[in-house]
Amino acid sequence: MSETPDLKALKQYLEDWQEQLCAAISRLDNAAVWREDNWRHQAGGGGRSRALAEGEVFEKGGINYSRIRGKRLAPASTGKRPELAGQPFQATGVSLVLHPRNPYVPTAHCNLRFFSCGDKAPVWWFGGGYDLTPCYPFREDVIAWHRAARDACLAFGETAYPLFKKNCDDYFFLPHRNETRGVGGLFFDDLNEWGWERSFAFMRSVGDSFLPAYEDIVKRRQATGYGQRERNFQAYRRARYVEFNLIYDRGTLFGLQSKGRTESILMSMPPVARWIYNWTPAEGSAESDLYSTYLRPRDWLKE
Amino acid sequence: MSETPDLKALKQYLEDWQEQLCAAISRLDNAAVWREDNWRHQAGGGGRSRALAEGEVFEKGGINYSRIRGKRLAPASTGKRPELAGQPFQATGVSLVLHPRNPYVPTAHCNLRFFSCGDKAPVWWFGGGYDLTPCYPFREDVIAWHRAARDACLAFGETAYPLFKKNCDDYFFLPHRNETRGVGGLFFDDLNEWGWERSFAFMRSVGDSFLPAYEDIVKRRQATGYGQRERNFQAYRRARYVEFNLIYDRGTLFGLQSKGRTESILMSMPPVARWIYNWTPAEGSAESDLYSTYLRPRDWLKE
Repeated sequence: MSETPDLKALKQYLEDWQEQLCAAISRLDNAAVWREDNWRHQAGGGGRSRALAEGEVFEKGGINYSRIRGKRLAPASTGKRPELAGQPFQATGVSLVLHPRNPYVPTAHCNLRFFSCGDKAPVWWFGGGYDLTPCYPFREDVIAWHRAARDACLAFGETAYPLFKKNCDDYFFLPHRNETRGVGGLFFDDLNEWGWERSFAFMRSVGDSFLPAYEDIVKRRQATGYGQRERNFQAYRRARYVEFNLIYDRGTLFGLQSKGRTESILMSMPPVARWIYNWTPAEGSAESDLYSTYLRPRDWLKE
Repeated sequence: MSETPDLKALKQYLEDWQEQLCAAISRLDNAAVWREDNWRHQAGGGGRSRALAEGEVFEKGGINYSRIRGKRLAPASTGKRPELAGQPFQATGVSLVLHPRNPYVPTAHCNLRFFSCGDKAPVWWFGGGYDLTPCYPFREDVIAWHRAARDACLAFGETAYPLFKKNCDDYFFLPHRNETRGVGGLFFDDLNEWGWERSFAFMRSVGDSFLPAYEDIVKRRQATGYGQRERNFQAYRRARYVEFNLIYDRGTLFGLQSKGRTESILMSMPPVARWIYNWTPAEGSAESDLYSTYLRPRDWLKE
């Protein structure tokens, strides 16, 4: 088992994954208008951004592939290795965010990334995962989502799913709201203790499991009827997405700190967001159920 | 000239200032719905938040008065004095943000604040200022705004206006967009070298100059006709306001770090914000003029 990072295979997988994701989205929504931008990063490397807008199913979204080099790693991305801040680095990754039009279809995010840092004998690690952010959640969807996450982890030991599920709950949390961003999923970072082959296989397993899980939910919910009330709540909840990404998200902060391409980094922003002072849902409403039932960490597979 | 901080006079001025601002807004817009919340801070102190919504002139806004105590000063608010991080502190201030409905009326922000930090022989300083964020600016308004700012500084030496004007340009800047937030105004922080009397007088001079300057602009522009195009651009530009406040604004970050009241801190958020991937204004358009003429530091009083 070779333990030298096979960067060619990694690049191939990520490029193919971006293609597959785009193709699947086009199948789900043939009205979406795509825009592709190939760009160079000032310090080396570049990316391929594919943004979509004004679809029938997806109101806004994007899938970014990037491979950037930098002379000094930004503090936001050193993870457990603060000593690496300021070192030369390479970062490769694909990141997807989809904001559906129908408030009954949840927003999805997934990301796979690989870092290597240092000149000689570079330190490398994987990161990534996915999480789901519904406005009007269905228990059945949340359980199916977590089953897919668990299954993706199955071949990697019993502790993998509980650990990465908890990481996800911890990471996608808004302390100033005392809420999770959504119903979670998987989040891993600083992964290298498994060695290259196993870590890379895990990354692929996570990557491969995202699409079928999300596609099922989209198909199940996209015809659900909705009105202005649901659209208003969706816009209100999208403001939380903005708050999380701009205040806490390490990927966003890393991108901005390393002078990445702003429009690609902020492709994750929703099409529209509303803020209403001190709004709270009516007791017993569907909106209230989101808060009381879903926006806190739960073990969805044991209940 | 007494140099002992007169905290009673300070409290009185700030409370009165909040009242005056609210009264003036009510005169400008008698349709606005106000909501007042008196709240206590977990670590001591509290505040009086007045939020307005759904007015004819002002779509959303708020005026916060707060006086909080804390056991440990958050890093975001130590300014030039990083050694004070972790010290017990008191912070008193009033902060206003108004998001007008008409895209031809600029968004305004002003803030006056006083910090004191440390147990014995506390270190104290003033901060504050105001800045204007138009979507469709009028040169006449920008010049009048800066004249008011300069006049407020007149009694405090020749360097006051240029210094605090430059501070404002530097502070209200979005590096990831390479744009200023708006057309600036005044920003001061860590002000104590003038001693209490003079510093407090300066704070009052800034406070007193805000309302007449902004009121004039509102009255001049509030009847300007607009349509969906202008509203769309306004919502798009409001997203920049969100980006600035959530990524860079020290007041916002300080508030969240010190576990302030989230709804009061985020009263500055616009009612709605739109993100459009990689949007740029058409060449020669009014929207394009905002970027090329106004969103960079300029000396408005010398041109």
